[in-house]
Amino acid sequence: MARPDRPAPSAGFFEVLLNQRACRQFDGRPVDDDVLERCLEAAIHAPSAENKQPWVFVVVRDAATRHQIAELTRAAWRDGARSLSEGRLTPELLDDVERGIEIGLESAPVIVVVCGDRSIGHEVVLPSSVFPATQNLLLAANAVGLGSALTTLATLRGTELADLLDLPATARPMAVVPLGWPARQLGPPRRLPLAERVHVDRYGNPWGGSA
Amino acid sequence: MARPDRPAPSAGFFEVLLNQRACRQFDGRPVDDDVLERCLEAAIHAPSAENKQPWVFVVVRDAATRHQIAELTRAAWRDGARSLSEGRLTPELLDDVERGIEIGLESAPVIVVVCGDRSIGHEVVLPSSVFPATQNLLLAANAVGLGSALTTLATLRGTELADLLDLPATARPMAVVPLGWPARQLGPPRRLPLAERVHVDRYGNPWGGSA
Repeated sequence: MARPDRPAPSAGFFEVLLNQRACRQFDGRPVDDDVLERCLEAAIHAPSAENKQPWVFVVVRDAATRHQIAELTRAAWRDGARSLSEGRLTPELLDDVERGIEIGLESAPVIVVVCGDRSIGHEVVLPSSVFPATQNLLLAANAVGLGSALTTLATLRGTELADLLDLPATARPMAVVPLGWPARQLGPPRRLPLAERVHVDRYGNPWGGSA
Repeated sequence: MARPDRPAPSAGFFEVLLNQRACRQFDGRPVDDDVLERCLEAAIHAPSAENKQPWVFVVVRDAATRHQIAELTRAAWRDGARSLSEGRLTPELLDDVERGIEIGLESAPVIVVVCGDRSIGHEVVLPSSVFPATQNLLLAANAVGLGSALTTLATLRGTELADLLDLPATARPMAVVPLGWPARQLGPPRRLPLAERVHVDRYGNPWGGSA
């Protein structure tokens, strides 16, 4: 099922981590449950505070529900997020993000909504549990050749999203992850050098600076 | 450098993800910069909102600073966190966590403090960027055979922690990760079955329930 241009299921660990990219356009091929299950198993093996596993994953295949999630995302984008991003992104990246929101999200055959449940874990530690699990989901997707992206825009419409998915009042949507086979090959990720973000012992003493 | 009972550097991707455990006791061996660098490279390859990479890693090797971080953690534990955990954890897990806080953290030769910087990324998206990067750090540690844990207790003393590390006012400590060679072999992680945490299309329709 994996595309030849993507890491195979047995791909080396670092190869998968160092080649994760946000995918915003998917082709039409379906994603089988067994492939999804491998990704979800990886997700729930993330660490969590007190090992409470305070995450809730809603795997949305239903086309009408996916459409409504995409609508909520577009509404959040048009109602404010876009204008915030305009001054911050290059025109090229802004276009890419916008195409992803306007068209791409809905083109994914599966959308996973990742929530934190404060009836399971303490509210303040939900992010430190839910986002590692989300990252495992994305990494596993990359390992099996699926495209994915970590998006949070639709969570700005959290109440509507919760209603749509019949979430209990204790569960809060925190991420929306489209999953599908990528429509095109993605290049390597672009990152700043370590010394721009890593300091030794104290802030201002860059990694490698004294080596 | 990797222990024979841990995944080798070339370990398969899923083997690493499915065998991540919190390590709270370390042996005395030092961790070389080149091993740390592999882990940090993995960390900064996490996704982030707008690819702003709004994380700051402070790699603490200095013994006095590690001691002070451990002191802040112990203070947060004794001043409230312990009593919250008492009713929630099994006595066995409570003991393990307590030993980790009282003794284990300081036994790690490296402590990485992971921060979000709101001068780089918007405050509301810091968790969805910083915790995936933190998770990459922990996964990479596991891949090279290092023990690690995602802790957040010391961030309850965020102001003191920020002072200790000379952080700018815009940077907020969000996680504290001890890194070192594990003092003992850890068993496989314990997780709930997928159907307890994964729903299909709507909450209440468990994964696999209709298969």
